[in-house]
Amino acid sequence: MADKIYRVNMTDLSTSIEDVPADWAGHGGRGLTSNIVAAEVPPSCHPLGSKNKLIFAPGLLSGTAASNSGRISAGAKSPLTGTIKESNSGGSSAQKLAKIGCKALIIEGQPQDDCWYSLTLKPGEVTISKEDDLVGKGNFAVVESVEKRFSDKIGIISIGQAGEMLMTGANISIKDPDSHLRSLGRGGLGAVMGSKKIKFIALDAGDAKVAIADVDAFRAANKVFSKALVSHPVSQALATYGTNVLVNIINESGGFPTKNFSTGQFEGHEQISGETMHDRIVERGGKPKHGCHSGCVIQCSQIYNDLKGKYKTSGFEYESIWAMGAGCTIDDLDQLAEMDHIMDDIGIDTIETAVAFGVAMQAGVLEFADADEMIRILKEEIALGTALGRIIGNGAGSVGRTYGMTQVPVVKNQAIPAYDPRAIKGIGITYATSTQGADHTMGYTIATEILGAGGTADPLAKEGQVELSRNLQIATAAIDSTGMCLFIAFAVLDDSTCLPALIDMINARFGINLTADDVTNLGMSILKTEHAFNLAAGFTNLDDRLPEFFATNPVPPHNAVWDFTGDEIDAFWNF
Amino acid sequence: MADKIYRVNMTDLSTSIEDVPADWAGHGGRGLTSNIVAAEVPPSCHPLGSKNKLIFAPGLLSGTAASNSGRISAGAKSPLTGTIKESNSGGSSAQKLAKIGCKALIIEGQPQDDCWYSLTLKPGEVTISKEDDLVGKGNFAVVESVEKRFSDKIGIISIGQAGEMLMTGANISIKDPDSHLRSLGRGGLGAVMGSKKIKFIALDAGDAKVAIADVDAFRAANKVFSKALVSHPVSQALATYGTNVLVNIINESGGFPTKNFSTGQFEGHEQISGETMHDRIVERGGKPKHGCHSGCVIQCSQIYNDLKGKYKTSGFEYESIWAMGAGCTIDDLDQLAEMDHIMDDIGIDTIETAVAFGVAMQAGVLEFADADEMIRILKEEIALGTALGRIIGNGAGSVGRTYGMTQVPVVKNQAIPAYDPRAIKGIGITYATSTQGADHTMGYTIATEILGAGGTADPLAKEGQVELSRNLQIATAAIDSTGMCLFIAFAVLDDSTCLPALIDMINARFGINLTADDVTNLGMSILKTEHAFNLAAGFTNLDDRLPEFFATNPVPPHNAVWDFTGDEIDAFWNF
Repeated sequence: MADKIYRVNMTDLSTSIEDVPADWAGHGGRGLTSNIVAAEVPPSCHPLGSKNKLIFAPGLLSGTAASNSGRISAGAKSPLTGTIKESNSGGSSAQKLAKIGCKALIIEGQPQDDCWYSLTLKPGEVTISKEDDLVGKGNFAVVESVEKRFSDKIGIISIGQAGEMLMTGANISIKDPDSHLRSLGRGGLGAVMGSKKIKFIALDAGDAKVAIADVDAFRAANKVFSKALVSHPVSQALATYGTNVLVNIINESGGFPTKNFSTGQFEGHEQISGETMHDRIVERGGKPKHGCHSGCVIQCSQIYNDLKGKYKTSGFEYESIWAMGAGCTIDDLDQLAEMDHIMDDIGIDTIETAVAFGVAMQAGVLEFADADEMIRILKEEIALGTALGRIIGNGAGSVGRTYGMTQVPVVKNQAIPAYDPRAIKGIGITYATSTQGADHTMGYTIATEILGAGGTADPLAKEGQVELSRNLQIATAAIDSTGMCLFIAFAVLDDSTCLPALIDMINARFGINLTADDVTNLGMSILKTEHAFNLAAGFTNLDDRLPEFFATNPVPPHNAVWDFTGDEIDAFWNF
Repeated sequence: MADKIYRVNMTDLSTSIEDVPADWAGHGGRGLTSNIVAAEVPPSCHPLGSKNKLIFAPGLLSGTAASNSGRISAGAKSPLTGTIKESNSGGSSAQKLAKIGCKALIIEGQPQDDCWYSLTLKPGEVTISKEDDLVGKGNFAVVESVEKRFSDKIGIISIGQAGEMLMTGANISIKDPDSHLRSLGRGGLGAVMGSKKIKFIALDAGDAKVAIADVDAFRAANKVFSKALVSHPVSQALATYGTNVLVNIINESGGFPTKNFSTGQFEGHEQISGETMHDRIVERGGKPKHGCHSGCVIQCSQIYNDLKGKYKTSGFEYESIWAMGAGCTIDDLDQLAEMDHIMDDIGIDTIETAVAFGVAMQAGVLEFADADEMIRILKEEIALGTALGRIIGNGAGSVGRTYGMTQVPVVKNQAIPAYDPRAIKGIGITYATSTQGADHTMGYTIATEILGAGGTADPLAKEGQVELSRNLQIATAAIDSTGMCLFIAFAVLDDSTCLPALIDMINARFGINLTADDVTNLGMSILKTEHAFNLAAGFTNLDDRLPEFFATNPVPPHNAVWDFTGDEIDAFWNF
C-alpha cells in the first residue's frame, strides 16, 4: 500500500487519510515534519493554541531491515523555544508507523471541551477515542494499560503528567520493543500533544510490511552499511559503556559543565562514569548492551538494575547523567537512575529539567548535591503541578526568569546540554545557530573536536568551528530524514563505504537514484526551510547568541571564555 | 549651580559628578533617560546583569514653580519587556533632584558581594552607604525609617520586597509630600534597582533652588498654562472623581476588560466607580482631591480612608481599580484599596500584578472574585517570594507561560491595561507599537476615542487610529521630557494657549528659543532613539503585534475582534 498522510482534526474530531502531495514525496523524518510545519503552521501562532500542529513521521528507511533505522521524528512550533522544532527518538514507533503506511501523522486543532482522547492507527485507519482512565497517570502506567488493551506488539506514543499540564519541558515517550521508554526529548513537544488533549497514540501495524523496490540491492547495501557501523571504534565504545562513555572524556577536556556551568570539571566524575556504570550493570545482572529498536547493531542502550537486581532504567544517557550529576553535583549513579526513571514516567526532558534544577540550586531553591530534595520535587511538585513544579517543569529559562538569575544556560530558551561552549567552542556554534535552540545533536562537533572523527579541531580555538558546525548541521538534517540513528555519523565520517551504502538503501527502497550531492542539498534545504520559519516567527540573527555570562565568566580549568563575534557566528548562514 | 550628571558605580562603589555632555544638554525626563540608555547600555545585555544601568532624571521644568511639573523619569533596559524602558511618576523626587542640581543620576555596575546599599544625594554630593536594617521591609517602613534618619522634607526613592527579589513586576516607589507613595510602575524597574542592590535613595536638596533665566516671562507663561489646565472639563472631573471617573465611561463603551479580557463590561462597575469612590471618601472624612507633588493644580489623587476613617491608600487609580476589580471580577472597593495598599508596600505594579491575577484565575490557581485569596497571596506568597509569589510577581506573561495559557493579555510581555483593544482600537495601536510594551500612557488615544479631546475617532473603526496613536506617542514623548504630568495633554489638545505657554516656560527657564516644531521633533527623535535600541536588542516588527486571542475571540457586547493587519500596524513607523 502506498504511503499516505494520516490527518486528525481535534477541533471537530474528524480524520482523513490523504495522498502524499508531490512536494513531500521525497521527504521523511525531520525533512517531512519541518516541511509540513513550514507549510501549514502560521509562524507567529501560539504554540499551545489551535493553530499549531503536531506531526509524527518515520524516516525514509524506517520499517525496513536497514540497520539503525528506527528513529521517529516529531515536529511542531515549540512552546519552549518558539522556533520550529524537530525531535527524534528510537523505540518501535517509527517502524510501526512506516508499516502502517503512514508517511506522516498530522494532528491539528484543539478540542472545544475538557475531554481527553487517544488515537489508534492501523493500516488505512485512524480513530479517535475518549480517554478517561489514564489521565493523570505516568508513562509506565500508560504503557502497561495500553499493552493490556491491545498487545505488547503495538507501538505506543504517550505523554505523562508534564505533557498533560502543558509544561514546556514535557517530552513525548516512545515505547521500545521491551516496553521500556525512549523520548522525543527536547523542545516541549509533550506540551503540544497535551494541548491537543491526546494522552496516547496506539500504533497497530498487524502484519503489514514496508515495500522495497529492489530487495537484492537493498540487502547488499545494508550488509556493507552494517559492517561499517559495527567496525567503528566509537560504535564499540557505545556498545560497552553506552553514551555515558563520555563522562571521563569530556571531564578530561575541561568542558564538562559542573555546578550550573560554574566550572568545567567534576570531582565526582569517576563515580558517574560509563566505566563505573558498566561494572555496576554487570554486577547486578543488568545488560550493558541493549537496542532501543529492532535492527540496531550499535546497542548503546542498557538495562540498569537497582541494588536488588530489579530493573530501574534504560536509555540512561550521558547527557542525562551529566545534567543531573555534574550539573547538580550529585555523584551517586543510583540516585541518578532513580531520577531518570521518574522523569521518564512524568514525561519530562532529563536535560531541560536537570539543567533547570542546576539553575534552581544556584538560585537557592534547594542545595547543590541534594538528590533527595530533587527526587521529592520531581514526585511531589512537578508530577503534581505545584507552583514550584511548574517553574522547574517549564525548564531552565523558566527558573532563571522566575528567580531573576543571570547565569542561565539556554539558547532560544532551551537548556544548553553537556558540553561547555567556552572550552569546546565548535559546539557553541551549534548551540547558537541551530534552528531549534541549544541542542548538541543538531551538529555534533564533539565528534571531531573531542573524538577525532572526520578529522580534528582544537576545541579551545575558533578556527574552522563555524564550518565544522555548518557541515555537521547539514549532514544531520539529512540523516534525521532517513530514520537513521545519529550514531551512524561516526562511520559516515570515517568509513568511505558507509554513506554510499546508505544512499544505495534509500534508492533500493524507493526505486530512485539519489546521489551524495542530493543528500547534501536535502540537508541544506531542510535547514533553510527551518530558518525561514524562524525568521517569519520573529527571530533574528541576534537570537543566535549565547548568554552573556559565557563571555564574561571564564570557565576553569582552561579559564576560557566564549569569544565569537556576532559576525563570525552569522557567517554560519553563508550557504 | 549648573546641572550635573551624578554617577554611581556599584561594582567598585565609586561616585562622580560630571558635566553634562552637549548631546544631552537639551534633554530632560524621558528624553534624557532614553538617550543615556541608548548611549551607554548594550542593547543585548541581561537586564539584571552588571551592564544594565538605571537612570533617574527630573524633567526640564521640574523643580520650578511650573504647574504639574513634578514627574520623575526612570530609564533602563526593562527586565519585563527586554526593551528600552522609561517609567515616570509624581511625588517629590523630581523636584528634589532638580534642586540638587542633578540632571540625571546614572547607577551602573553591580556589587560583587551580597550587601545592600543606600544612596544619598545632596547638592554637589552623592554617597553610598551600606544598608542592613531596611532589607526585607516594605516601602512604608522604609519611608518612615528614612524620614526619621533625615527629615520628612527629603525625597525618597525606594523598592519593596518585590524589587529586592528581582520580580519583573516590581516598581520603584516615590514618596509624595505627605509621605504617601507614588510609583514608577511599569516595566519592572524595581528589579533593576534591586539588581544594583540599592534599597533606597535619599534626596536632600536643603534650601537649593532651580535657576530661572527669565523669571518674569516664566511667571507670565505659568499663569496662562495653569489657567488652561484648571479650565479643562477633564481636569475638573479628575479633581472630583480621580482617574477612576473612567470606570463607568469605559464600561459604557464596552471596552472595559472583564474577567481576564473575556468580556467588555462588568456587572459590578457601579460599586467600583469614581462616583461611588467619591461619596465613600467624603463619608469617611478622606480627601477626594489631593496633589502628588507641590504645584499640582489638577489634584487627581485622593485620600481613601477605611471604614474606621483611617488612612488606607492614595493614588488609587482607575487602571489599578479596573485590573483588580473588573479584571478579577471583584466589586468591593475596600478590598481593592487594601490590595492597592499592600502592592504599594511590597513595591509591585498594580496593573501588571492584577492582570497576572486575572490570568491565574483563568488558569484555576484561584477562583475569580476571591479577594481574600488575592490578599493572602499578596501577603504570604509575593511578599515572601514563594514559588507562586514569584510566578505572579513576575507578571501576567509569567503566569501565562507557567500555566500554558493562551489568553494572556500582554505585548512584549507587559500586561495590557484597562482598555480592550478590540472595542477601542486606537489604543491597540499604542499597545502594539509602543517602544515599551503595552502601555496606555504612551499614546493615550482614549482621550480622543472616548473623551473627545483633540477631536473624535470611532473606537470600533480602524480609520485614522494609526495616525492618532502616532501623533499622541510623539507628543507624549515630548511631554514626558518636560517633567509635566500627562494630564496636561487634555488642555494641550483643546486649548490653543496651553502648548505655547509650556514652551514659553521652557524657554524662560533655560534662556533658549524652542518652537512648537522643536517640540514635535524632540518627540519624534525620542521615539526613534528608543525604537533603534529595541531593534538592536533583537526586536522586529513582528513583536509589534497583539496576542492571537484578540483576533480569534470576539469581545462582547460589540463582539469586536482585533482586525489590524501587520502592514497597517507597521505603517506607524512611517515618520
